[in-house]
Amino acid sequence: MLYLVHMIVRIPRDLPKEEAQKIIAEEKAYSQELQRAGKWVHLWRITGEYANYSVFDVESNDELHDILSKLPLFPFMKIKVTPLAKHPSAI
Amino acid sequence: MLYLVHMIVRIPRDLPKEEAQKIIAEEKAYSQELQRAGKWVHLWRITGEYANYSVFDVESNDELHDILSKLPLFPFMKIKVTPLAKHPSAI
Amino acid sequence: MLYLVHMIVRIPRDLPKEEAQKIIAEEKAYSQELQRAGKWVHLWRITGEYANYSVFDVESNDELHDILSKLPLFPFMKIKVTPLAKHPSAI
Amino acid sequence: MLYLVHMIVRIPRDLPKEEAQKIIAEEKAYSQELQRAGKWVHLWRITGEYANYSVFDVESNDELHDILSKLPLFPFMKIKVTPLAKHPSAI
Amino acid sequence: MLYLVHMIVRIPRDLPKEEAQKIIAEEKAYSQELQRAGKWVHLWRITGEYANYSVFDVESNDELHDILSKLPLFPFMKIKVTPLAKHPSAI
Amino acid sequence: MLYLVHMIVRIPRDLPKEEAQKIIAEEKAYSQELQRAGKWVHLWRITGEYANYSVFDVESNDELHDILSKLPLFPFMKIKVTPLAKHPSAI
Amino acid sequence: MLYLVHMIVRIPRDLPKEEAQKIIAEEKAYSQELQRAGKWVHLWRITGEYANYSVFDVESNDELHDILSKLPLFPFMKIKVTPLAKHPSAI
Amino acid sequence: MLYLVHMIVRIPRDLPKEEAQKIIAEEKAYSQELQRAGKWVHLWRITGEYANYSVFDVESNDELHDILSKLPLFPFMKIKVTPLAKHPSAI
Amino acid sequence: MLYLVHMIVRIPRDLPKEEAQKIIAEEKAYSQELQRAGKWVHLWRITGEYANYSVFDVESNDELHDILSKLPLFPFMKIKVTPLAKHPSAI
Amino acid sequence: MLYLVHMIVRIPRDLPKEEAQKIIAEEKAYSQELQRAGKWVHLWRITGEYANYSVFDVESNDELHDILSKLPLFPFMKIKVTPLAKHPSAI
Repeated sequence: MLYLVHMIVRIPRDLPKEEAQKIIAEEKAYSQELQRAGKWVHLWRITGEYANYSVFDVESNDELHDILSKLPLFPFMKIKVTPLAKHPSAI
Repeated sequence: MLYLVHMIVRIPRDLPKEEAQKIIAEEKAYSQELQRAGKWVHLWRITGEYANYSVFDVESNDELHDILSKLPLFPFMKIKVTPLAKHPSAI
Repeated sequence: MLYLVHMIVRIPRDLPKEEAQKIIAEEKAYSQELQRAGKWVHLWRITGEYANYSVFDVESNDELHDILSKLPLFPFMKIKVTPLAKHPSAI
Repeated sequence: MLYLVHMIVRIPRDLPKEEAQKIIAEEKAYSQELQRAGKWVHLWRITGEYANYSVFDVESNDELHDILSKLPLFPFMKIKVTPLAKHPSAI
Repeated sequence: MLYLVHMIVRIPRDLPKEEAQKIIAEEKAYSQELQRAGKWVHLWRITGEYANYSVFDVESNDELHDILSKLPLFPFMKIKVTPLAKHPSAI
Repeated sequence: MLYLVHMIVRIPRDLPKEEAQKIIAEEKAYSQELQRAGKWVHLWRITGEYANYSVFDVESNDELHDILSKLPLFPFMKIKVTPLAKHPSAI
Repeated sequence: MLYLVHMIVRIPRDLPKEEAQKIIAEEKAYSQELQRAGKWVHLWRITGEYANYSVFDVESNDELHDILSKLPLFPFMKIKVTPLAKHPSAI
Repeated sequence: MLYLVHMIVRIPRDLPKEEAQKIIAEEKAYSQELQRAGKWVHLWRITGEYANYSVFDVESNDELHDILSKLPLFPFMKIKVTPLAKHPSAI
Repeated sequence: MLYLVHMIVRIPRDLPKEEAQKIIAEEKAYSQELQRAGKWVHLWRITGEYANYSVFDVESNDELHDILSKLPLFPFMKIKVTPLAKHPSAI
Repeated sequence: MLYLVHMIVRIPRDLPKEEAQKIIAEEKAYSQELQRAGKWVHLWRITGEYANYSVFDVESNDELHDILSKLPLFPFMKIKVTPLAKHPSAI
């Protein structure tokens, strides 16, 4: 089941640099693990913004929330989830 | 799986009265059938507005879209779907 | 009498961790007490957000305000209240 | 119990003049009856707009919805209801 | 002459508690004095929010601004003023 | 007493041309009469829009509403009124 | 090069049914042709709305505009285009 | 002197086709004349929308308003004007 | 040439009091100098807000930007500029 | 390929002055280098705001994102990118 997820990242300036880099590295590893697992099926950078559009393929709202809320960057993100359905014209 | 659905109804004035009443009756029957089936679990009127908040319990985004797009009033509705997950404090 | 309440939680980063955890624990206890009392009838997590939709069943606006303003997390919340009425199609 | 109600009126131009005047007259009578009954406690015109802020004193959300949805101008109104509570500083 | 005033209060967390309580007490005294003087004619808490809707009866925009800008909480408020006029249906 | 008034004009296309021109001419005469009377003290076109910012100098909210609601173009306008006060730096 | 495109469809009620169905059929054929050509790489229905999120893989802004402006439903659509770039964490 | 102008075009469906085409042709001629005259210095289509961003180089706000209000499509446009100044880093 | 300028002032609380008062005094002197020079032709306080509407009469966008960007309070302001043109009904 | 880019700059007050000036100088050098390279084809200050509208001529979304994300002021900017296409009336 697919969801479009819009994530805006705002890392506060007073977060120590090492801590920020550590979190960003964890975020990358976490997202790549989910990508390999086929859960995080698309991850695109929004041109010009520290933000992304992603598509997740999961079994339920709860699974999606679990995944998103465990994002290392979650505390610094504004997230909007749009549930997607099959389009009658999609081949 | 639960979804909160916000529906604003705007029936155009130039829709013939009988046709409007027919659709509204169909809408009521359709919604009550889904309520009895346990799909449409909550249906509340927003005080002062021709609009409602509803909660649906369905298996997937696709099932929800199928249900909503077949609402007789669908062509006259502005709909927003918010996917819900289990809250850690909910008993 | 029912109200839909939208709560967005923003715990400031500079709130000491223990204090934050204490407040969150108090919030959980407080909400579960109200759930058991039948006041807080629904509590759903909005998928992907540190926010919830809740439904309260109380006697008056004042009682609802009293309940909400005593939420341990109240100082860190953005809250919107929508009064609900009985829908003519609701069974 | 008090509610602040914001009403924007948009009477469509193609509504026959007599019908519009009839509805407006009914609206006035309806509102004055509720004012005399102590339900509609304040009715103020928003300067420069075909809109008003009103305050209602009713027993429940349902009673308020019943009153508002029976406004003759209801089909031509955009309404927002804000539930009010007692302010700790109000004398 | 009447004005509807919407006030959202945001007291910064790093304002020392005593100072905050002192200002809140001053605010209460200030508002009650104006209520007794018939200037501040209505003061309602918005259910679920640290905000209020108030109605002022003053002689001019300038008098209203003078009153509002001297609110002890003024530096921590977001205020919107809506000028009100007599409604033709108001009794 | 001064008010800034923002007026957006939307004349419906299906208003017969002569009727539109008649109303526009009446609007011009009406506004120039008020300008001569010192009530309508500024009238500026917003560059690129069929809209204006105006400043009125009147005795009360009611007088302003009376003036604005009698604008021949009033039924085709979206109006926002901002009450102005004396600025402490204004000479 | 990827673009996320948000399309909201509003087919006016007074469009003759056959004409509407003809356009919708043309839209389906047109979109499926582009899907087969690898231009229209994703087409998802937004749950509960007559709207979709799509992803296009094209050579330029101009090519995208050419494709979108030739959509049979283009005159009845509200479209927003978000240019996408490669995300550093995307595998 | 430069201005960025955002123009959204909404040609009503019930405008006879020939009349619409005539206006669009006049619009093209009018804009190309201004482009040749160096007034309309940039004209870009917003990808995916019946809208454009343009830059005008004119002597005054009044001249710009005169130009824009004489656009054949002006009655069917939503226009926003942003005055531009020289950027200190611009070479 | 006239411009309407909307200025919202937000002086951060952690700006030392003396520094704030110094800047405010400089702002007053700066604005009164421009008022005397006929550049800053209107300066009105928005009732209830630490904000103003002003009208400037300058030669160009660049001159206006130069004036505004040199406002001592500029770093603490949110500013919106609306270019004004002569209204055909203005006497 | 052209893109309109809207950049709002908000340099936090607690950024040490020298560091801020260093970044601003780097930004200027970086932007002028791109201007000379023909990538950053227009750079205009929005009158009255610490913001700009720019036009970039680049090969792809990715190239644009690379350029923008390397702006020294990027961490202090709110950026919106609008992809532009050739306008049929542009000469």
